[in-house]
Amino acid sequence: MRDFSGDHRWLSLNTATVRKQGDFVAIADACGRHGIRGVSPWRDQVATVGLENAVRAVRDNDLELSGYCRGGMFVADEAHRAQEHDDNRRCVDEAVALGAPCIVLVVGGLPQYSRPGSAASKDIVNARAQVDDGIADMMEYAKQASMPLAIEPLHPAYAADRACVNTTEQALDICDRLDPNRTGMLGVALDVYHIWWDPKLMGQIVRAGRDRLLAFHVCDWLVPTTDILNDRGMMGDGVIDIKSVRAAVEAQGFAGYSEIEIFSHGWWDRPMDEVLQTCIERHKSVV
Amino acid sequence: MRDFSGDHRWLSLNTATVRKQGDFVAIADACGRHGIRGVSPWRDQVATVGLENAVRAVRDNDLELSGYCRGGMFVADEAHRAQEHDDNRRCVDEAVALGAPCIVLVVGGLPQYSRPGSAASKDIVNARAQVDDGIADMMEYAKQASMPLAIEPLHPAYAADRACVNTTEQALDICDRLDPNRTGMLGVALDVYHIWWDPKLMGQIVRAGRDRLLAFHVCDWLVPTTDILNDRGMMGDGVIDIKSVRAAVEAQGFAGYSEIEIFSHGWWDRPMDEVLQTCIERHKSVV
Repeated sequence: MRDFSGDHRWLSLNTATVRKQGDFVAIADACGRHGIRGVSPWRDQVATVGLENAVRAVRDNDLELSGYCRGGMFVADEAHRAQEHDDNRRCVDEAVALGAPCIVLVVGGLPQYSRPGSAASKDIVNARAQVDDGIADMMEYAKQASMPLAIEPLHPAYAADRACVNTTEQALDICDRLDPNRTGMLGVALDVYHIWWDPKLMGQIVRAGRDRLLAFHVCDWLVPTTDILNDRGMMGDGVIDIKSVRAAVEAQGFAGYSEIEIFSHGWWDRPMDEVLQTCIERHKSVV
Repeated sequence: MRDFSGDHRWLSLNTATVRKQGDFVAIADACGRHGIRGVSPWRDQVATVGLENAVRAVRDNDLELSGYCRGGMFVADEAHRAQEHDDNRRCVDEAVALGAPCIVLVVGGLPQYSRPGSAASKDIVNARAQVDDGIADMMEYAKQASMPLAIEPLHPAYAADRACVNTTEQALDICDRLDPNRTGMLGVALDVYHIWWDPKLMGQIVRAGRDRLLAFHVCDWLVPTTDILNDRGMMGDGVIDIKSVRAAVEAQGFAGYSEIEIFSHGWWDRPMDEVLQTCIERHKSVV
């Protein structure tokens, strides 16, 4: 396992972590100030400043991307299918413009939450079938742009409203079906928050192997968790044995960024510089 | 699948559902009034009225038990191991006195939450090993009393603080290890709230088979869920396709009670009779 204690060369900041403190340009500038070399922007944050300004902010601060958040939300009723299709193609175009190494896919849950306005359903089996179809379709377009797609299994607490892919095993089953030859165009984004609880995790990381481990995200699971979406913890403040998961992905050859993604009302309320400073300290000590 | 639309013969009330509205005797009496034939009491509710009074309330209202909640919390540090051991033996004795068909096991998470006062740990792998040992030990005692143990896989959101057995597959793996001959002394309690999201659920219900399906619980998953412990929904108010899960367990030969267990500040705030009336209606229409 790489030694992170001496510097933060392999820290990437998912820009949702400080989304309330400033726009994407301000965040990119702050990363520059703090010597943070990697970022993973969210589409809405890029849209707010405009794609060209986002590209310039990345370049001006000499940043690399560790991913682009997010494609997906594949589950929709018939009337919203074209919207999904176009939206995911635009996402690929943006990721190319920004120089992202992959697009992180949050695949969607039931149609009424995945694509609001869609007819309500409780059929999660059908939702999962739509996810397979949606990824297959998006891959056709992404392949032409040489843009890998990283399926992010989300915690089962989000199965209804954000993603019906909820375990690493399930995500890798999709990879096996849609990219049996391991072309590098489809893999997983593993976030310790979503997967730490999984009794099959370690075996599935081995199964993924280097060519399917496209992104690695960290934060922590707080006890109690008071808000299932926006009470994620700073690394070290919760119960996840983060180093053991990082050791497992690095044992497979993963050598990319450790991306910090924290959705937290508590951390959104603090000054950007304080949050980044804390991220850097914790990256060195507990990641 | 049995037709529940005509009566509520197969409705059992988990007494936590109305724990704020009255003590166990009041709840048993209310069940008698509403023609509810099954209950599943919690140990603390029994302790409050005294075991003998609880036994009498069950008898007076001609009730059957569908389970006894709960044994477990097996994860502890060395100093708290004896407490766990004695506690689970007392649980077996109480279950026998009440005529329970099984004890529902909530196995515990990390030691500091499972047995408060225990030294803190982030080692979920070790917690799971302790769960195996704890169940094996408790089974020795329970077997002598012919009291089956039902492992309840809890939603992954509770992995840290309540149960580190989080999927039906994982629970059945434990059953295979500790009771390979399927003696009927070890099985699972399946609650739709905890398992509905699981992509492997249907296959695992088949794997369980009739002799390992010891209890079936219902409520619903609300979107949004505002409190991960105490915002469970009344059946029909959420996103779970409850009938499809009941059909699957009954296809294996399960013919016991459909037990309603709802932890909800919203339902705890309503009069007991209103809650029971709603349970009966929903049991007939959406379970």
